[in-house]
Amino acid sequence: MARYLVSRSEMHQFIERCMKAVGTNSSHAMALADVLVEGDYRGHYSHGLNRLDVYLKDMKSGICAKDGEPVVEKSTVATALVNGNNLMGPVVGNFCMDLAIQKAKEVGIGWVSAYGSNHYGIAGFYSMQALKSGFIGMSCTNTSPLVVATRAKEGTLGTNPISVAAPALDGDSFVLDMATSAVALGKIEVQQRRNEEVPEGWGCDSNGKATTNPTLILTGGGLVPLGGSEATSGYKGYGLSMLVEVFCGMLTGSNYSKNIRRWKETDKVANLGQSFCAINPGCFAPDFEKRLSDLLNIHRTLEPSDPSLPVLIPGDPEALHKAECDHHGAIPYHVNVVDHMNSVAKELGVDLLPTNRTIDP
Amino acid sequence: MARYLVSRSEMHQFIERCMKAVGTNSSHAMALADVLVEGDYRGHYSHGLNRLDVYLKDMKSGICAKDGEPVVEKSTVATALVNGNNLMGPVVGNFCMDLAIQKAKEVGIGWVSAYGSNHYGIAGFYSMQALKSGFIGMSCTNTSPLVVATRAKEGTLGTNPISVAAPALDGDSFVLDMATSAVALGKIEVQQRRNEEVPEGWGCDSNGKATTNPTLILTGGGLVPLGGSEATSGYKGYGLSMLVEVFCGMLTGSNYSKNIRRWKETDKVANLGQSFCAINPGCFAPDFEKRLSDLLNIHRTLEPSDPSLPVLIPGDPEALHKAECDHHGAIPYHVNVVDHMNSVAKELGVDLLPTNRTIDP
Repeated sequence: MARYLVSRSEMHQFIERCMKAVGTNSSHAMALADVLVEGDYRGHYSHGLNRLDVYLKDMKSGICAKDGEPVVEKSTVATALVNGNNLMGPVVGNFCMDLAIQKAKEVGIGWVSAYGSNHYGIAGFYSMQALKSGFIGMSCTNTSPLVVATRAKEGTLGTNPISVAAPALDGDSFVLDMATSAVALGKIEVQQRRNEEVPEGWGCDSNGKATTNPTLILTGGGLVPLGGSEATSGYKGYGLSMLVEVFCGMLTGSNYSKNIRRWKETDKVANLGQSFCAINPGCFAPDFEKRLSDLLNIHRTLEPSDPSLPVLIPGDPEALHKAECDHHGAIPYHVNVVDHMNSVAKELGVDLLPTNRTIDP
Repeated sequence: MARYLVSRSEMHQFIERCMKAVGTNSSHAMALADVLVEGDYRGHYSHGLNRLDVYLKDMKSGICAKDGEPVVEKSTVATALVNGNNLMGPVVGNFCMDLAIQKAKEVGIGWVSAYGSNHYGIAGFYSMQALKSGFIGMSCTNTSPLVVATRAKEGTLGTNPISVAAPALDGDSFVLDMATSAVALGKIEVQQRRNEEVPEGWGCDSNGKATTNPTLILTGGGLVPLGGSEATSGYKGYGLSMLVEVFCGMLTGSNYSKNIRRWKETDKVANLGQSFCAINPGCFAPDFEKRLSDLLNIHRTLEPSDPSLPVLIPGDPEALHKAECDHHGAIPYHVNVVDHMNSVAKELGVDLLPTNRTIDP
């Protein structure tokens, strides 16, 4: 099926006008557009335009704050606890990451954690802010319970993503941005729509048993942690998911684990917890960027097991997607997503997304 | 086969006298004994007495420094770069973790990284030091290349373990201590000795293809990252392994990746990189320990998928092993390991380990 081509600026403006139409503070709408467009541009379509609906619903229902600013509740030269005041995730995330970077400039490291936040898009958006200062950035968030702990039957942990970005030479970088589950929910949904099985190690049924049936995973079952079954060390992914919860729910006093509202539930405040850290490599050994470039190049030039599949480093798949978009001068979107959002835009009474340019898949 | 029972203090003294017999500074020998006995006590036998041989060889060959102290090369109120002066890992690790905790007491967080270090035993030994102050602790190290990056054929990354420990109420805690590979090398070796296959997702052959044959993994092949194949998100484990390398080799200027000496090679200085962090939860939301206890209890009381396998939290398997040791008043050891080390002790001219108490497996 053909895909629509929409430029980044067209998409940015569209998201802004939709959000403003439901009463969102103008700079907050812009912050959200920045994050969602970056998600799509990097190829993480599940965290871009695809999510706009959720943000709009939260605004329309009034369950998320339309205006205000995050507030620092407690701080040292190197740390801060922030009340996100129930603002959109990107507003809270930018505030916290900026503060972490500022502290890293002063004392080499800054760690800022927030409660009262909401979905913040791709975790990598925040970690990558640190690259602009030549710093290492880290960001993680807790999320709605979807992941079943090793040996359990019931989902008690979110996909709890973590991202770390580090600067190499000439604008190159390492950008790890991963859910701590084996795969994201969206991957299971895609297989269900295609009526195809999923690989062993993606999910379990309502009895906690491994299954390759996407419908069993999505109805009563759940995602499994990175590593899959206990035999293949799924307990490590489970531990990483809980680690993110320690940095998010535990440090901040936000909701956590089963207490977080279910995915797509919008009648309760999310009150998510998030942590952000920046580290100045200049406070450690000289030539950090040079060494990192060497490490990346060691891996990119490895002989691949399958000659058609080059060895990549974290961030390369996203860079390849960005290059594809740049080639088109626009981001390719699934027709259904754009059509759906245009129907939403119509209801909101704002200008639609252009649908005059298409590309074959 | 029956196992020998050796008390912790007997084992501690044995390790001390062996290390002193090869000229190790007395307090350094004690630091090593602390870490190795703790490894065995927690059930991580691959990182206890089993490794003493390696430390002895490094001392005898003079490839590791017998005496001296680590030195702070650069510091801020929150960070430090340490030169480990080629001392044993536990000496460097204790120095760095103490410093990180001290900084966390002053400004809420401390991050200390070292180069010029050596194998430091279980990563959890250092992260757990922070628990004594009610802090969160983190520790990670790079290691000899054994892990094959996703899509590659050649091992370029270590098992690069990371540990995070966090305090809960009444002495309870969360202790994640994991290699970023799917499994440790020792697990493959055990299957080879038993002449049994390993599960899919543990290792690959010399062409980078998944294999269940332990001999192919150990001869020319390698370990695979947590997550296994690309289809089951092994690239995330690969990313985590590289993340540890960013925190270790990149931040500190130590050896890294392929430049680290091969496993069991002792003719080159290891010059490993390690990072240590402490975070004071008191600088964030009140009642951290209470929330963490709640999170742990939510998981421990989950209905298990298999009624005979209770849901555990990271650190529980180790706590169960410690309880078993406490029950015996001693640590159970494989006969071969003790017999081998006693033959080494004989050569060194020091008192042997007692072999008068045994237990059936």
